[in-house]
Amino acid sequence: MNRKHLSCEAGSAPDTPEIPACDYRAENPFMNLAIAEARTGIHLGHGGPFGAVVVRDGTVIGSGHNMVLVAHDSTCHGEIAAIRNAEQHLGTHDLSGCELYTTGEPCPMCLAAIMWANIGRVYYGATIHDNALIGFRDEVFDRMFGDRRAFGDLLVPLDREACLRLFGEYRNLPKTLY
Amino acid sequence: MNRKHLSCEAGSAPDTPEIPACDYRAENPFMNLAIAEARTGIHLGHGGPFGAVVVRDGTVIGSGHNMVLVAHDSTCHGEIAAIRNAEQHLGTHDLSGCELYTTGEPCPMCLAAIMWANIGRVYYGATIHDNALIGFRDEVFDRMFGDRRAFGDLLVPLDREACLRLFGEYRNLPKTLY
Repeated sequence: MNRKHLSCEAGSAPDTPEIPACDYRAENPFMNLAIAEARTGIHLGHGGPFGAVVVRDGTVIGSGHNMVLVAHDSTCHGEIAAIRNAEQHLGTHDLSGCELYTTGEPCPMCLAAIMWANIGRVYYGATIHDNALIGFRDEVFDRMFGDRRAFGDLLVPLDREACLRLFGEYRNLPKTLY
Repeated sequence: MNRKHLSCEAGSAPDTPEIPACDYRAENPFMNLAIAEARTGIHLGHGGPFGAVVVRDGTVIGSGHNMVLVAHDSTCHGEIAAIRNAEQHLGTHDLSGCELYTTGEPCPMCLAAIMWANIGRVYYGATIHDNALIGFRDEVFDRMFGDRRAFGDLLVPLDREACLRLFGEYRNLPKTLY
């Protein structure tokens, strides 16, 4: 397992032979890329099963996955990694006109980050409740921050079934929770 | 003005002769360090007047300031910069036992980041409402995420007056809002 220190800005880690072939697919191609990001992360021991891509006008302009463990960075969730990666590519802190695809519904930190970045829509696979079922604290934090009615149609569910397959794959791997 | 690209993980930027002497002080020494971080940031054009330090057992183990503009990173608020900096120094994603001092009450992104990092207490100067008065969107976002009653005594006000002097200093500088 690759445990060398990696920066949260690294973007997509290179695919390696350590990552087994995937036997499930999302219907949406961008969600498939988010799943591929997440699979890279979980099989290399980088963190939780959370990958994300930022898309503008049908083109991927940034991607990333959870690297909390390997980057020693509690803020390096998949969405934040993808946002930072996109912003580095574009040379701006403003992602107006962009959409984000993520394997798990954003936690409050990532949801607020999405708003600061002016991302207009988020497609997510697994729900906050699904995140809790694999051991993450998103749901506890989410309750403290209130519900999500104020966010209108910013958050759109998509391809939950494929993302639950990803979560199942993660559940069967040796891992460190945080 | 130094506009070269800087990473959000850079930690404290070096002090330079461009930063004028400060004619106000916080009573708490750690808040003074957070103010010094913020002043470095605003005088170098890095972003808003938000600096932070992470403290463990009376020792500063991380610091940072808002570098949204210069780092092209919408997630690089002062608190997140300081958390990342502390975690890099310690080689961990877990800041249990640490406290954070910040010139402005954390926005929802930073507040959730503080919780993911397991920081036990936050001392803040200016309030969310003060942040809004100098043009930032914290208060709008904060309303969407509900109020802060669920956070108990995690958030402790401290040295607001000195931080409002900092905000006044910022207000008089040429700047870019976001």
